[in-house]
Amino acid sequence: MSARPPAEPGMAFDDIDTPALIIDLDRFEANIAFMADRAKALGVRLRPHAKTHKSTIIAAKQVAAGAVGLCCQKVGEAEILVEGGIRDVLVSNEVWGRRKLARLAALARHARIGVCVDDAKNVADLSQAATRADATLNVLVELDVGAGRCGVRTAGEALALAKAIDAAPGLTFGGLQAYQGSAQHKRSVQEREALIGAAAELTGETQKRLKDAGLECGIVGGAGTGTFELEGKTGIWNELQAGSYIFMDADYAKNHKADGRPVDTFGHALFVIATVMSKPAPGRAVVDAGHKALGNDSGFPDVWGLDGATYGRPSDEHGAIDLTNCKTEVSAGDRLLLVPGHCDPTVNLYDWYVGVRGMHTPDARVECVWPVSARGALT
Amino acid sequence: MSARPPAEPGMAFDDIDTPALIIDLDRFEANIAFMADRAKALGVRLRPHAKTHKSTIIAAKQVAAGAVGLCCQKVGEAEILVEGGIRDVLVSNEVWGRRKLARLAALARHARIGVCVDDAKNVADLSQAATRADATLNVLVELDVGAGRCGVRTAGEALALAKAIDAAPGLTFGGLQAYQGSAQHKRSVQEREALIGAAAELTGETQKRLKDAGLECGIVGGAGTGTFELEGKTGIWNELQAGSYIFMDADYAKNHKADGRPVDTFGHALFVIATVMSKPAPGRAVVDAGHKALGNDSGFPDVWGLDGATYGRPSDEHGAIDLTNCKTEVSAGDRLLLVPGHCDPTVNLYDWYVGVRGMHTPDARVECVWPVSARGALT
Repeated sequence: MSARPPAEPGMAFDDIDTPALIIDLDRFEANIAFMADRAKALGVRLRPHAKTHKSTIIAAKQVAAGAVGLCCQKVGEAEILVEGGIRDVLVSNEVWGRRKLARLAALARHARIGVCVDDAKNVADLSQAATRADATLNVLVELDVGAGRCGVRTAGEALALAKAIDAAPGLTFGGLQAYQGSAQHKRSVQEREALIGAAAELTGETQKRLKDAGLECGIVGGAGTGTFELEGKTGIWNELQAGSYIFMDADYAKNHKADGRPVDTFGHALFVIATVMSKPAPGRAVVDAGHKALGNDSGFPDVWGLDGATYGRPSDEHGAIDLTNCKTEVSAGDRLLLVPGHCDPTVNLYDWYVGVRGMHTPDARVECVWPVSARGALT
Repeated sequence: MSARPPAEPGMAFDDIDTPALIIDLDRFEANIAFMADRAKALGVRLRPHAKTHKSTIIAAKQVAAGAVGLCCQKVGEAEILVEGGIRDVLVSNEVWGRRKLARLAALARHARIGVCVDDAKNVADLSQAATRADATLNVLVELDVGAGRCGVRTAGEALALAKAIDAAPGLTFGGLQAYQGSAQHKRSVQEREALIGAAAELTGETQKRLKDAGLECGIVGGAGTGTFELEGKTGIWNELQAGSYIFMDADYAKNHKADGRPVDTFGHALFVIATVMSKPAPGRAVVDAGHKALGNDSGFPDVWGLDGATYGRPSDEHGAIDLTNCKTEVSAGDRLLLVPGHCDPTVNLYDWYVGVRGMHTPDARVECVWPVSARGALT
């Protein structure tokens, strides 16, 4: 039931049907290589987050560039990654429910599978599922290092859970999950440093308490595209879980470097191409990409290469382009490139990636059309 | 590449995997019947909007209850509706681009296909596509009746376009598309009446100008779940395009009746069931449904049947439930029902509907699992 692909390999850029999800392949490959280099330079392992791309093809490219495996948020994503050949998958999230746990344990007979916990009852459930499947699950304790979402909040609680995991049949204690999600989009380096500093303190203290109790953390995982340099240099985290770096989105591009200028480490490699379907008034155009084509939760998309044009007022299948301050003429039938405000939920709206070589040049051509293989893997 | 179904027919309600999209079948059937009765009583045709449900099974139920056909927003949705047996489909939207127009014209050889325009160049493109396919497209002129989205804004412009359609090979003039989208969610009856009154004035005047020029409007279409009674009684619109009435969402339920109380004509028939995956602190729970499981653009979901609990702070795969003012005990592993803030983009995130009979009773069981057949039909 996948929607039909909006393009075919070899097609000219202007023939891609809209709205479509475009990868600038040159930029995307550079982003993958740059992060692989940075992880190596920092001396930490890279386990990129598949929640961003939901693609087995992209996961394989990350592993080929040196990643030790992938992480993801859902059992369904883990199933698709393993089916696609990834041998080491961490579900960086809590999993509850008899059916889901049975699926997770079944998967652990075919790959190395990790999962996170913050509750003793959940440890018991995981142990039961793993023993029933005659499998071993690698279980990490999630620490709330400041994001205020899931996770235990003290070293003492983490120690109690780690001991329970260590003692439970079918489970091995895998380490700590310590992701400071709320630091990722803080605009100034100072804010990000302060939050990651506090996260490092709790994570380091917890790791020490565990070590004193004879429990080694195989994985101390966390970090995202906004902060990975900070976690990477602490010596505490040994696995980086960044995801968005491959694509970058409009929101991440609003973060600042130490000199106050926008970050430019990674470049925008993900776009939505849209068509102007109506030009009802001067200064206003309507494109065929609305809420069902764009994840707008972190802000609206930027309009690429059209100075003064802004996207707004989306409805389900429409977006308004305000051209009041734009000097370029825009007509119905024209095509515009949008930089999604938030890449992860945008990707999840599409069945296909259209990979373009020579993007932003007159020779731009479709090189590949890849399925978003784990799109909609909600359970 | 559809994600696996979260349930099977016959399964107990508590065995449905989460997050999942649930239809309360009793309430859903009552909503369909009630709208069919209202259209009959108002003396207007019903052409429900498939953008809400994207389901050929639901479309067939609407036709069986008396609908004359369906409308939709995308060529891809029209293709799936026709494939599912619907014989009369109106794309209530402008369509641009060679490949899309060729698909639309090809479809018109197998069903009655309508489409909207607000631009003379688009009329010429439609004519070329229709003649190439040796097909006939029924073309409506879209009027901007106050929403400020697509559409021409005067009777004179509409007349010029209608004449162009009437003269173009392969096209028949089909009437007017006059949807006042911005009136749908105005909370008071007075606001909705004022906006629909203004829309009626322009629509009626335009219809008269067309009639004087010898152009009959086969369809005068518009209206949504928030205002259909108003359009229906004007005598101007002859087709209602409401969509959300089958499910209702949290936002529509905030509209008021004339007496100031919330509307209660239709009942909530669409839910997302979620699991509490973490209970990290008193007064706070985390559920496994975030931006990838809920369309949050019109507000966050309501938590059903749990007084004082509110949903907030979603991330991609998480939602926080604030329990500060809730007297019921909530534990990790518990399951909660959410009423989506906006049903259309929520439905588009799922591959499957889980139809439940006896919802909100101890005997609740899964009766059917239906594909969201046009999910992701973006082009």
